[in-house]
Amino acid sequence: MQSVPNRLERQIEFLIEIDKIKHIFRKTKLLDQSRFENDAEHAWHLALMALILAEYSNEPSIDVAKVVKMTLIHDIVEIDAGDIIVYDTEMRTLAQEKESTAAERIFGILPEDQKEEFIRLWREFEARESPEAKFAAALDRFEPILQNHLTEYYAWKVHGISFRQLQEKNQHIRDGSTTIWNVVQEIFLAAKESGNIV
Amino acid sequence: MQSVPNRLERQIEFLIEIDKIKHIFRKTKLLDQSRFENDAEHAWHLALMALILAEYSNEPSIDVAKVVKMTLIHDIVEIDAGDIIVYDTEMRTLAQEKESTAAERIFGILPEDQKEEFIRLWREFEARESPEAKFAAALDRFEPILQNHLTEYYAWKVHGISFRQLQEKNQHIRDGSTTIWNVVQEIFLAAKESGNIV
Ligand SMILES: [Ca+2]
Repeated sequence: MQSVPNRLERQIEFLIEIDKIKHIFRKTKLLDQSRFENDAEHAWHLALMALILAEYSNEPSIDVAKVVKMTLIHDIVEIDAGDIIVYDTEMRTLAQEKESTAAERIFGILPEDQKEEFIRLWREFEARESPEAKFAAALDRFEPILQNHLTEYYAWKVHGISFRQLQEKNQHIRDGSTTIWNVVQEIFLAAKESGNIV
Repeated sequence: MQSVPNRLERQIEFLIEIDKIKHIFRKTKLLDQSRFENDAEHAWHLALMALILAEYSNEPSIDVAKVVKMTLIHDIVEIDAGDIIVYDTEMRTLAQEKESTAAERIFGILPEDQKEEFIRLWREFEARESPEAKFAAALDRFEPILQNHLTEYYAWKVHGISFRQLQEKNQHIRDGSTTIWNVVQEIFLAAKESGNIV
């Protein structure tokens, strides 16, 4: 595409690069249990959750469009850094540097202004300090919890996740949405009572 | 989940139902050609395109958040109606009624206010009259064109799509973005010159 201006060329190159996210598989299965979910599907589902569940954000005046943007881009770094289960604390810490490098490389394909915008947004998501980041982070946990609930606790059983780990590692859902936290509590309790987790 | 209020229950039921979109496969392949793309991945990619290419909308004051919403939900009806290639005019016409029924059923799982909002948004996308719908429709065509360009024209060859069909069926890209239309023209010409399409 010879006559395409450099700015647009870089934007298209970025859009081509991120196709790779469709090959990054997660630990949870699709609801029919036929296969693992990939990061593109996960991001799409979170964005839909943001649109539909926004009213349950603890902060009522949340910027929903910003939450949607965050959910759409939050896992792009995994193209280079891979997906690591949230319950593996050591590996998660090691992954952080890898993810920063990945953000520089991948968002760096974009024109400077967009690179900066997307890296800022990704860092805001990771920091979980703004109301939008807190809510997006709550959704990022709610999706796999719902998937485990509906797939006979597949990932929790395979990775030996305990009731206590579930409580500890998902506590920040409460910072984004007490309503979603209440739903999650019921799911954790049912999992424990079913005898599928200890 | 006994203590969950009815409104939230319906919203979660909808979020569970739309997991099925991850099993609706399109005619185009992922860029590494390993398999076909599904509708969740496609919607995610369009939403990213909307965020990154918004500056090329013919209408400069476009509501980008609305375009993103449209791209995220535009193919949910295919859970019931299936994916039909845009070059099959007869089948596309037949699909329209099916898609309306699908919209009623699937968005109908949501609380009334959200059902109405989403059906309105989907109809707006389908009508291609508002600046946001025109731009979203342009992206909806640009993605598979880019995929064909990068996968040795896979879908165009398999389905015997001609240069003339490409021009005719994608003309409305120009209504959303003349810049994207110009890129697409180069892709079509290169495809013709390569001898892969007639
Ligand atoms: Ca995630």
